[in-house]
Amino acid sequence: MKILILGAAGMLGRTLLSRLAAEGLGGAPVTTAVLHDVVDPAPAAALPFAIESHAGDYAAPGAAEALVAGRPDVIFHLASIVSGEAEARFEEGYRVNLDGTRALLEAIRALPDYAPRVVFASSLAVFGAPCPDSIDDDYLCAPASSYGVQKAMIELLLADYSRRGFIDGLALRLPTVSVRPGRPNAALSGFISSIMREPLNGQEAVLPVEEAMRVWIASPRAAVSYLLHAATLDTGPLGARRSLNMPGVSVTIGEQIATLRARAGDRVAGLIRRAPDATVTRVVGSWPQHFEATRARALGFVGDRDFADILDIYIAEELGGRVPVL
Amino acid sequence: MKILILGAAGMLGRTLLSRLAAEGLGGAPVTTAVLHDVVDPAPAAALPFAIESHAGDYAAPGAAEALVAGRPDVIFHLASIVSGEAEARFEEGYRVNLDGTRALLEAIRALPDYAPRVVFASSLAVFGAPCPDSIDDDYLCAPASSYGVQKAMIELLLADYSRRGFIDGLALRLPTVSVRPGRPNAALSGFISSIMREPLNGQEAVLPVEEAMRVWIASPRAAVSYLLHAATLDTGPLGARRSLNMPGVSVTIGEQIATLRARAGDRVAGLIRRAPDATVTRVVGSWPQHFEATRARALGFVGDRDFADILDIYIAEELGGRVPVL
Repeated sequence: MKILILGAAGMLGRTLLSRLAAEGLGGAPVTTAVLHDVVDPAPAAALPFAIESHAGDYAAPGAAEALVAGRPDVIFHLASIVSGEAEARFEEGYRVNLDGTRALLEAIRALPDYAPRVVFASSLAVFGAPCPDSIDDDYLCAPASSYGVQKAMIELLLADYSRRGFIDGLALRLPTVSVRPGRPNAALSGFISSIMREPLNGQEAVLPVEEAMRVWIASPRAAVSYLLHAATLDTGPLGARRSLNMPGVSVTIGEQIATLRARAGDRVAGLIRRAPDATVTRVVGSWPQHFEATRARALGFVGDRDFADILDIYIAEELGGRVPVL
Repeated sequence: MKILILGAAGMLGRTLLSRLAAEGLGGAPVTTAVLHDVVDPAPAAALPFAIESHAGDYAAPGAAEALVAGRPDVIFHLASIVSGEAEARFEEGYRVNLDGTRALLEAIRALPDYAPRVVFASSLAVFGAPCPDSIDDDYLCAPASSYGVQKAMIELLLADYSRRGFIDGLALRLPTVSVRPGRPNAALSGFISSIMREPLNGQEAVLPVEEAMRVWIASPRAAVSYLLHAATLDTGPLGARRSLNMPGVSVTIGEQIATLRARAGDRVAGLIRRAPDATVTRVVGSWPQHFEATRARALGFVGDRDFADILDIYIAEELGGRVPVL
């Protein structure tokens, strides 16, 4: 089985590749993984399948044609300009996120007798305030950002190309992924991971919002499990509606801190410093806090049990099961 | 006030132009109307404002820039490849409906200090089965056709360009317009007008569906009133959600025929011949049958009172108030 991963150098892409190496895909071994990102996505360690690594702009003329020329069976499309950049650089956001994806779909359509599974990482950003307390599977996409508009437009294209038989696509609206390993990033939602990750490394973290704020999250492990499940599930029951709200855990910041305290003690939890930030509070506070995810659960997508589960996954996978003694 | 109408040669475009000539717009007189369509849209009669008439492909390179160069205050965008053609000609549908509209929005964005009102004729086709019996303002857009996907994608663009301040746009999801004057057309929904119009002209009409089928319709007069109202209303209360389900009348075919019988007698109503058609029944029967249209009504969009109102409008405007004596 041949795989193409766009956005392979990102956290999800790298985790996905490790899982493909360990598990294969749908019971079959992966034979070749074509990897693409703006930086060289070649993995450091040897993997049990061939790697073709490409660095560049997937939205550049001819790039999509080259990436699909080898007819990958499954395409994981995780690449995009992130929300802040799509907001700051209007033309570049549409060029990369929308036109790049359309070029990919057109490159696939141009190949005869070829309709690969396409798994697209969509986003909660397709929804915009005001939202109900819990969003069901029939709720309106009304994005509040150019990034969300681009994701929602791609979802529509993905459904149309699937209905026409050009691809067999799914768009997964992933929760905010937390606890992310690695270093802090510039995302406004970055604190959701930081307030767990940094204290567990014995370092201070900044909490810019009230503890009452509720967020919708999934562990990196769950998010990658969604991608893997989407790559092989029977799309027949989906009908024309190819976008799915993924399961997640709805949890307040205060509940997360209480879980950290129970797991690692008062001193670790005490490394969280309060520094309210109006912008972060406004933006992250406007995001959906809970989804029904009824269709996704019925289709076999299984999420984290609860936040304790999410924290334990992080401690097990990233810290070897050890919490700091302070 | 300067106006641009794309799709000016169509039934709605011509009716809109007549209303602008008779009423002006928002209390102000129209000074210039720039008209565009694939055929020459110049009106036969003289109008109380200057006319610039253009025939061609509005999606062709440079066309949009030329149309907005004169900085019209209000742009009515009624142009599109229709649903059947967008389904039959995949590339052409995306080129004209999506790329043409995007080129229009980009041509506007390229002009400094210019953010015109853009009124876009969207469609019920942004919704797809399964739909609830009545669709509220927060219901998911899940189109079942390429035409519907293109309309839904434009709605998203329109909202983003409005949020950014490049335009001040509204997308109106119009009900099926009936009773349409003129000759039968090839639309699958054409029978909804035909079964009233042809008998009122003393001619036979074919009914391809069961009388129990329920449809969501608005008179041509109401539809044009929506466009006019959208051109001048205060968009402040709309917030980021720039697409509106327009008011309509939810009525069964049987109720329409009973109204025709009450108004014009048994012999006129007897000109409707039953000839069931599975395709028409399936396609038109899958369309939404009722909308709440709560936001639109709150914003001052006023629809037809009931089907008797719709039929009387047709008889008054197209038949001079006379029904045939058979």
